[in-house]
Amino acid sequence: MTTAGVSHGPGYMCIIDGCPPGLPLAIDDLMPDLRRRRPGQSLLTTQRQEDDIPEIWSGVFEGVTDGTPIGLLFRNQDHREQDYDSIRDKYRPGHADWTFDAKFGIRDYRGGGRSSARETICRVAAGAVAKKLLASQGIRILGYVIQVGDVVATITDPTMVTPEQVESTPVRCPDVAAAERMIELIDEVRRERDSIGGVCEMVAVGVPPGLGEPVFDKLKADLAKAILSLPAVVGFEYGSGFAAARSRGSQNNDAFVPKDPWRIGTSTNRHGGMLGGISSGEPIVCRAAVKPTSSLPRPQQTVTSSGESTEIVTTGRHDPCLLPRFVPMAEAMMALTLADHWLRRITPVGKSGK
Amino acid sequence: MTTAGVSHGPGYMCIIDGCPPGLPLAIDDLMPDLRRRRPGQSLLTTQRQEDDIPEIWSGVFEGVTDGTPIGLLFRNQDHREQDYDSIRDKYRPGHADWTFDAKFGIRDYRGGGRSSARETICRVAAGAVAKKLLASQGIRILGYVIQVGDVVATITDPTMVTPEQVESTPVRCPDVAAAERMIELIDEVRRERDSIGGVCEMVAVGVPPGLGEPVFDKLKADLAKAILSLPAVVGFEYGSGFAAARSRGSQNNDAFVPKDPWRIGTSTNRHGGMLGGISSGEPIVCRAAVKPTSSLPRPQQTVTSSGESTEIVTTGRHDPCLLPRFVPMAEAMMALTLADHWLRRITPVGKSGK
Amino acid sequence: MTTAGVSHGPGYMCIIDGCPPGLPLAIDDLMPDLRRRRPGQSLLTTQRQEDDIPEIWSGVFEGVTDGTPIGLLFRNQDHREQDYDSIRDKYRPGHADWTFDAKFGIRDYRGGGRSSARETICRVAAGAVAKKLLASQGIRILGYVIQVGDVVATITDPTMVTPEQVESTPVRCPDVAAAERMIELIDEVRRERDSIGGVCEMVAVGVPPGLGEPVFDKLKADLAKAILSLPAVVGFEYGSGFAAARSRGSQNNDAFVPKDPWRIGTSTNRHGGMLGGISSGEPIVCRAAVKPTSSLPRPQQTVTSSGESTEIVTTGRHDPCLLPRFVPMAEAMMALTLADHWLRRITPVGKSGK
Amino acid sequence: MTTAGVSHGPGYMCIIDGCPPGLPLAIDDLMPDLRRRRPGQSLLTTQRQEDDIPEIWSGVFEGVTDGTPIGLLFRNQDHREQDYDSIRDKYRPGHADWTFDAKFGIRDYRGGGRSSARETICRVAAGAVAKKLLASQGIRILGYVIQVGDVVATITDPTMVTPEQVESTPVRCPDVAAAERMIELIDEVRRERDSIGGVCEMVAVGVPPGLGEPVFDKLKADLAKAILSLPAVVGFEYGSGFAAARSRGSQNNDAFVPKDPWRIGTSTNRHGGMLGGISSGEPIVCRAAVKPTSSLPRPQQTVTSSGESTEIVTTGRHDPCLLPRFVPMAEAMMALTLADHWLRRITPVGKSGK
Repeated sequence: MTTAGVSHGPGYMCIIDGCPPGLPLAIDDLMPDLRRRRPGQSLLTTQRQEDDIPEIWSGVFEGVTDGTPIGLLFRNQDHREQDYDSIRDKYRPGHADWTFDAKFGIRDYRGGGRSSARETICRVAAGAVAKKLLASQGIRILGYVIQVGDVVATITDPTMVTPEQVESTPVRCPDVAAAERMIELIDEVRRERDSIGGVCEMVAVGVPPGLGEPVFDKLKADLAKAILSLPAVVGFEYGSGFAAARSRGSQNNDAFVPKDPWRIGTSTNRHGGMLGGISSGEPIVCRAAVKPTSSLPRPQQTVTSSGESTEIVTTGRHDPCLLPRFVPMAEAMMALTLADHWLRRITPVGKSGK
Repeated sequence: MTTAGVSHGPGYMCIIDGCPPGLPLAIDDLMPDLRRRRPGQSLLTTQRQEDDIPEIWSGVFEGVTDGTPIGLLFRNQDHREQDYDSIRDKYRPGHADWTFDAKFGIRDYRGGGRSSARETICRVAAGAVAKKLLASQGIRILGYVIQVGDVVATITDPTMVTPEQVESTPVRCPDVAAAERMIELIDEVRRERDSIGGVCEMVAVGVPPGLGEPVFDKLKADLAKAILSLPAVVGFEYGSGFAAARSRGSQNNDAFVPKDPWRIGTSTNRHGGMLGGISSGEPIVCRAAVKPTSSLPRPQQTVTSSGESTEIVTTGRHDPCLLPRFVPMAEAMMALTLADHWLRRITPVGKSGK
Repeated sequence: MTTAGVSHGPGYMCIIDGCPPGLPLAIDDLMPDLRRRRPGQSLLTTQRQEDDIPEIWSGVFEGVTDGTPIGLLFRNQDHREQDYDSIRDKYRPGHADWTFDAKFGIRDYRGGGRSSARETICRVAAGAVAKKLLASQGIRILGYVIQVGDVVATITDPTMVTPEQVESTPVRCPDVAAAERMIELIDEVRRERDSIGGVCEMVAVGVPPGLGEPVFDKLKADLAKAILSLPAVVGFEYGSGFAAARSRGSQNNDAFVPKDPWRIGTSTNRHGGMLGGISSGEPIVCRAAVKPTSSLPRPQQTVTSSGESTEIVTTGRHDPCLLPRFVPMAEAMMALTLADHWLRRITPVGKSGK
Repeated sequence: MTTAGVSHGPGYMCIIDGCPPGLPLAIDDLMPDLRRRRPGQSLLTTQRQEDDIPEIWSGVFEGVTDGTPIGLLFRNQDHREQDYDSIRDKYRPGHADWTFDAKFGIRDYRGGGRSSARETICRVAAGAVAKKLLASQGIRILGYVIQVGDVVATITDPTMVTPEQVESTPVRCPDVAAAERMIELIDEVRRERDSIGGVCEMVAVGVPPGLGEPVFDKLKADLAKAILSLPAVVGFEYGSGFAAARSRGSQNNDAFVPKDPWRIGTSTNRHGGMLGGISSGEPIVCRAAVKPTSSLPRPQQTVTSSGESTEIVTTGRHDPCLLPRFVPMAEAMMALTLADHWLRRITPVGKSGK
């Protein structure tokens, strides 16, 4: 997957290399996740309108993928270049303005330019392709919000959560009681011109044992990289994660038991479906910590590009909490990572020809 | 960095590509970190003896690197092949035995084979080279233990911790009071034939702003991958990390202020030295969650390779807590990641010739 | 450089990663080479009309590159889908029809689909960017035709050929007398409904010594790959090339002499500017053998996709000789390869600060 | 494949990543090609003795590959460091001495250091592994000498040449009459303290259609890169190659015909088994031009590292013609390239399960 594009240019390009031929694919396969990512879905998210219908330029022939690069195009709309003149020479706290200037010596200051989260539109579209490929192999991916601020959801069994449960609340939390309190909290921080962070959990079921390439391209390592490459993510864990730091081996180890469909499995899943960086056949369960939105409609202290102290107010429309729209992004990165490793899977010599 | 080798073969090979010429390098530069990684340092770690003196086969000429691949060699000793016959057909809980079998259809069962943590000897050696390269650019890296089980250290300022403080306790925790309780706890779990997890914090100071390659090779993403590629790591966070999920934007954003040496900096460092996936010039601070040692000298439930229920007791000598020896491994992976990004840094056209 | 697109879809996308910031860039920088590549320039080339004006979607801000991915877009026109129905189930000799079917099990049969040489439009545009980057470092690249069929040009000194000389004849051969005979020959084969092959020579002057990464990414190896990745190229050589097979070491070796601008050079250049796969500072001189156009407006024997013998006549407009339009493609691939290696060049530790 | 090592250090390391598990492998599988590469086989080659028995450090378990990195080790012997003091500060014509100095600012002057052709020992060993993998899929590779100086062999059908024919003459040319004249010529140049170039042809039969990844990683492009990465190679061509420049499309195109084993093939093979950069199922035929040995036991003009004119005589033992020992190197690079592309081959979705 390779992308180009900025939030205030003509649009975004996305090239997906390596998708096998023979996969039925149409724009309608991409739209559901793109709609889940789209701003303006509810009062919980930014009211900014974006037109997110992709064009498929190549890689699909007569309704199925043909093995050549899939080229996707998104046109930008709703430009308001004037919005950004006031921040042209000021660095927004929590954003990449300063670091882009430090790195490149030049920066497209309009809406974050290349660092805009609108870039994730490409990831979500490519992720939808990956999801369809994985689905053809019986692999299903689902993400949902498990924490917003101090509100923590109770999920008894991650593998039992359904897409319908996730979509039933605008905050995409399958624990309805927690979801209500999350919505209240987001509404509260929005009114206070503030923002709030949270945690998203992602689950993949049906992943066969054997995906992952030790010692450097372990599945856990590539999942961590994929999730951390998303804007605003500040932490990743899988299985028992940071809680494992408090536990003992006798508590944290999962006992192996005879189990279908891979004949061997574990009675519990504290290892989050990965052992030695290779999928075990158990559901892969991981979590991402997302920081509160950096753009705040209130004055913040900063400096100008010439190094003088000043204040900045980020106008425009921003999510008071990124989590609801983050869910499809996280699912997409998980799907892309699993699809890559599925394509890299190994066939022992002699067990198949071609 | 490319490696080969297994715990019970002749040894390990490590090839480091891309190290610039002109860096003074000798075996003595590698030994301090290798000694910190070595088993048998104290009662807190395994009493297994390993001979960890590397041979430099290439890449160093007349005392300095010459730009060609650096070849390092480690010979294995202390083989006890007979130790492993009892586990030949059983999967150790928490280990990669089952997943290697599932992936490859064949597995070197002697001491974990390729999945043995002895493989980190290559990483620590390569990391020492990376540290020396970074040091020539004023970049310094330090790791230390901040949590073992429920014992959490208090670190007022990560940038003020010294290597001497870290090495002053066998548990490598600079908070002496916490270190004592950690040692007690480790001793307790050892006596109970159990193990315990923990958290390691890593700090890099002197990193210039501008390292990191959005949107997919963000510095935070590559650090996460590097750390998660280490055995037993189950979580990664930087800056405020998972705590950011509970905080508000007004609390979590760091204000920009005029500041040396990069002219612009932040008054606080909740962003852990990275914004938009690019280094900001502030210290890079991140943490790794490490699970309790999977090998336990007590019976655990498992299955045989033919899928029958059985019990297993992992004999041999194992760390009751991985954290003390984990510190140099984490430092090494951080150093390698920063060195890679330093070598990829960009010079705008016209600002330098060659 | 990553591309997507097919000849009979909406168009082509090209993403250029890694171009340093600060390079002035506009569409006008890309047009000269795109015009040289364009069909319909003269009677020597196909009369097919293509609209080859690119759109720059990203990577250029306020007139200069900003270090982020450069996204280029080309829209297709002049579609005639009906042209290709007759070849839908037949494999054109010399083309990739059969091999695409064999590889992917599906094939966009319209105009070659992904295997169409129209794909080189992306390479020529990206090459123009690379040329501009190289020019800022004093490196200049030029290609020209030295052979068409049996007509071989006489080039006394490759480094003295000027762009004006090359463009002064429609066949892009700077030897005017040979050019005339080449034009006659091409006209003759065109009238005979046939095609003819040839050889293109490429020269790069101003390349500093030290580019190339032994032992696998030698500059000669990467140049060979780049040139062979172009359609219709069936051979590559540099310096004395295949003629070296007939020569003796005492004839083929170039003597070193004191020489500006790199202080040391060679008195002759049979080594084509590369020794040990690294640039020597002397001009880089290489050649590509190009086969005669495979599409012929005459009946050829072939089989159908179900394996039955049949005949095929390739209608449509095709170059009777690919060489004139091949020149900018070869220059582009050489420029991209040199730019990549220039960006990978090494600075010894201590010789530069940041 | 990753390598490290220099000619006058302790030895060479070679790491082979990605070899599938289940391939029977032992040192005896590597020895035949290593012996063909070894110096001192006949009066045609250098009389230098090398001990070329590898050690397998990892990747092979109980006699078969286990999917983990294969680590190979070669120890150097026959060191004569004093031999090279006289050339310490002089650049040998035709060698990489000057370019290594220009690139790295430092150079291991002992026997060429990293640029020594002894490095090909790793390639030949890795190539033997690749050959064995390919053989398990019915793919067979063979190289032989077709030209030394002006002596050109006559090969009626490249696919009918047998390994026994190739090995029956010390020059590895299956045309016995030509071989005799080649041997005379090599003997002549050796007595004249000179050297001579030549051409090697390589053939792969049994390659299934569909290998190669357009548009940049075409099979022809990767073969060209692999062959050009070998020392002394100055040209590459496949199929009709440079001769195609002189031919017409009506002569050069190969007609498709119904043909086993892939159901479709061509009646002639001027396309050298690759169309559109993808294997066609026909034998892959390519050639490498090899320059005359640069090391000459006669005075040559050169400069010192400080830029002063001087003379140099390369003492030591060198091949008067590289071709006989080049054959296994070329076969190895062809095998590695084909194995890589075989591992990358595509399975359309739905046509296979796991």
